[in-house]
Amino acid sequence: MPDIGEILSRELGSDRVIRADSDRLADYGRDESSLEGFLPDCAVLCRSREEIAWVLRIAAERRVPVTPRGAGSGKTGGCLPVAGGIVLSTERMSELVDIDSRDLVAVAQPGVITGQLQSAVEDERLFYPPDPASLGVCSIGGNVATGAGGPRAFRYGVTRDYVLGLEVVLMGGEILRIGRRTAKGVTGYDLVAGFVGSEGTFGVITEIVVKLLPLPAGVSTLLAVFPTMEAASAAVDAIIHRGFWPRTLEIADRTAVDHVRPYSHYRFPTSTGAILLVELDGDPDGLQSAALRVGQLCEDAGAAEVVVAKGSADRRDLWQARRMISSSLRRAHRHKESEDICVPRGAIAEMIRRIDRLAARFDMPFATYGHAGDGNLHVNVLIDGDRDDPAVAERVEAALSALFRDTIELGGTLSGEHGIGLSKKRFMPLEQSARVLQWQRQWKRMWDPLELLNPGKVLPAQPAGCRE
Amino acid sequence: MPDIGEILSRELGSDRVIRADSDRLADYGRDESSLEGFLPDCAVLCRSREEIAWVLRIAAERRVPVTPRGAGSGKTGGCLPVAGGIVLSTERMSELVDIDSRDLVAVAQPGVITGQLQSAVEDERLFYPPDPASLGVCSIGGNVATGAGGPRAFRYGVTRDYVLGLEVVLMGGEILRIGRRTAKGVTGYDLVAGFVGSEGTFGVITEIVVKLLPLPAGVSTLLAVFPTMEAASAAVDAIIHRGFWPRTLEIADRTAVDHVRPYSHYRFPTSTGAILLVELDGDPDGLQSAALRVGQLCEDAGAAEVVVAKGSADRRDLWQARRMISSSLRRAHRHKESEDICVPRGAIAEMIRRIDRLAARFDMPFATYGHAGDGNLHVNVLIDGDRDDPAVAERVEAALSALFRDTIELGGTLSGEHGIGLSKKRFMPLEQSARVLQWQRQWKRMWDPLELLNPGKVLPAQPAGCRE
Repeated sequence: MPDIGEILSRELGSDRVIRADSDRLADYGRDESSLEGFLPDCAVLCRSREEIAWVLRIAAERRVPVTPRGAGSGKTGGCLPVAGGIVLSTERMSELVDIDSRDLVAVAQPGVITGQLQSAVEDERLFYPPDPASLGVCSIGGNVATGAGGPRAFRYGVTRDYVLGLEVVLMGGEILRIGRRTAKGVTGYDLVAGFVGSEGTFGVITEIVVKLLPLPAGVSTLLAVFPTMEAASAAVDAIIHRGFWPRTLEIADRTAVDHVRPYSHYRFPTSTGAILLVELDGDPDGLQSAALRVGQLCEDAGAAEVVVAKGSADRRDLWQARRMISSSLRRAHRHKESEDICVPRGAIAEMIRRIDRLAARFDMPFATYGHAGDGNLHVNVLIDGDRDDPAVAERVEAALSALFRDTIELGGTLSGEHGIGLSKKRFMPLEQSARVLQWQRQWKRMWDPLELLNPGKVLPAQPAGCRE
Repeated sequence: MPDIGEILSRELGSDRVIRADSDRLADYGRDESSLEGFLPDCAVLCRSREEIAWVLRIAAERRVPVTPRGAGSGKTGGCLPVAGGIVLSTERMSELVDIDSRDLVAVAQPGVITGQLQSAVEDERLFYPPDPASLGVCSIGGNVATGAGGPRAFRYGVTRDYVLGLEVVLMGGEILRIGRRTAKGVTGYDLVAGFVGSEGTFGVITEIVVKLLPLPAGVSTLLAVFPTMEAASAAVDAIIHRGFWPRTLEIADRTAVDHVRPYSHYRFPTSTGAILLVELDGDPDGLQSAALRVGQLCEDAGAAEVVVAKGSADRRDLWQARRMISSSLRRAHRHKESEDICVPRGAIAEMIRRIDRLAARFDMPFATYGHAGDGNLHVNVLIDGDRDDPAVAERVEAALSALFRDTIELGGTLSGEHGIGLSKKRFMPLEQSARVLQWQRQWKRMWDPLELLNPGKVLPAQPAGCRE
């Protein structure tokens, strides 16, 4: 019997199939999570919907698991081939099919890099707002699969708010076009919404229609430096309750600032306990004055320093500091576990207090930053010990578990934008009832009754004896 | 055997069940569509999730169909009891459970009137944007069930963009809490998104968590009068491409304006061929100047007159004219068939030309108005003949069918915001493939395998021999 890699290779050509004899195969067993030790039987780099349909038909016939993969920039192991089989990569389907400035839509293949989509539409004075931190490397297909977010979500929403239509291929090879090209539409059930955020477990996305907006004519950015996270949270409240609707309200704590200080063009005072990066956009008239009023609200809440960017170079400097936080943490520590909990906005201050208590209790530094307008916090557990040491691993697991318990106690959710993938599925029962999990399993089986597509993700295994 | 009304009445009390001996029962067989001739066996006015769960358990056991009903203001017959049985009304579940200005959420029972929800949150300087024309009478539960829209959708999106969490009761009586209270969340599959727009066929909604925004501090409204719909459409393009993002871009044609003229405080010139009602909101600084620049763009596109509202009385007058269009058409004609097609934005001008041709071809006046920013047009077929006359009925049916064919040829969809219900399900195969329809039937059966909940809606009957 030929192995699956040989079968795919014979049909598609050997340059399109990466097999066990290639060093590159290991790349298809990794993502941006810290999970390791997965190797597929082969990876196939498809170029068209028809090729994907063929692969999914052959795989279904032979009962071979298939794990779809975008750019591999996910943080939860969502694209790791836990059951072996085929990794189906869409990286070579990277055509930006259409930008229509009259319809205000773009049509993209899944492998288009999100940042490239943004630049291309901005060249036509249009705007695709979702901006995950990885936008320079992540793909739009992966963004749709995870329901990716980003700093601008407070004003502009997340990926799911922009997906109008999809072409998907189901396990077995059926090609389905769902959704629409129109701004509004309530014709039949919302099949599209189900695929967004289903993490490649319902079908493989082969084409995406996204909504665009007019490009805001002006942007104004300011950075405020606070003595404490409490003061920064209070400023967020004041800004919102004065009726401002900034596109970003980014917060970061002392630990995060201390790590990024060496890399930042902006010189953070050593007393910095928290920062807030606020960005307003819209009609340029009055934008500068609005920024000054926002700055005043920050000062009223206790900000020691407020800097309003004077031009695009200034703005770049301020954002550079924000964007370097994650990599500065990684450089300074042996490991980091990066979570993306989301709590109701009003619970941010209490969540931050609890995070401080967890850091003390588990005797590990935590760095927290994220999207304060949405209550979406990136909590980074910083680990200097050897994670292979069972004592360390146990302490990290206990800290994460306590973090999620606190999150849910405050009415929050496990993931604001990264998804569940492999790394968080064991925590799902903390948040969702057995019945809610069961209904999701049923939905998954509707699309993929053989459970061959991205198996072992999102939902924890069903308790024994519960199969309906 | 006692009839179902008697069973419900014995348990819940006779004041809660409307039976065949009451004149009021007929009210539960009607909505705001022109469909007639449906009468349920009884209507039950439930007061709690537990009562609804009990009714849905009894109904499932006895195989009695149940048709959920909000305020009965739908336009497509979605709440009509086509198979008899029970009409389950949520009108008495009208508690506004919570407005949380720190979390930026409201929690409502389904019977809360949408306009009352809006006023209540605006009293706290918060904002719930979706504004269906019927907001004074429609309920939030019905809005969620249909995925309701409204004029502000261009900037603020539709109901589905605001629903964070739901409590639903399934046929058989299971109570399920899905979704979240946080602004963002990608924990598991998006069960909530499936319920929004499912028109009461998946489950009965018993509680809704909606996202709120900060209330915009300023609003500026202007009306522009154009000689033709082409000129008005060109102004819409110009406004968007200058980077303006108005909250409304309402358009209306000559026929609509001619009908509303007698009721309008604003005196439309007799030469009016089209109007555009533009509303900007946000920080008050610079808003007036932005409105003047938008007005200039309208003049550049050929507007004969531009009026910028000077205060809230002016604004009310301009909106009054827009809001009276529908009722002025109804008063002037024996019947009207009101559709809500949606085409890609760039196809509006061509769609309007086609509508003119249809009016000529079928020799009936058409009045067109709607949400130009979204390509969402309310096309009203005005009928002065007797619709019971088969020749008239046939002509209306042919005109609607031609309208939908043109819509779909231009890449559009049958319904932008009213839903499909009963009145449009026969047209579904014009837009959606047999397989897409079949997958929706399967999704429906997942939630309601006995097909007892709101039967006969949304999806056309399955062709014989196709049952999987």
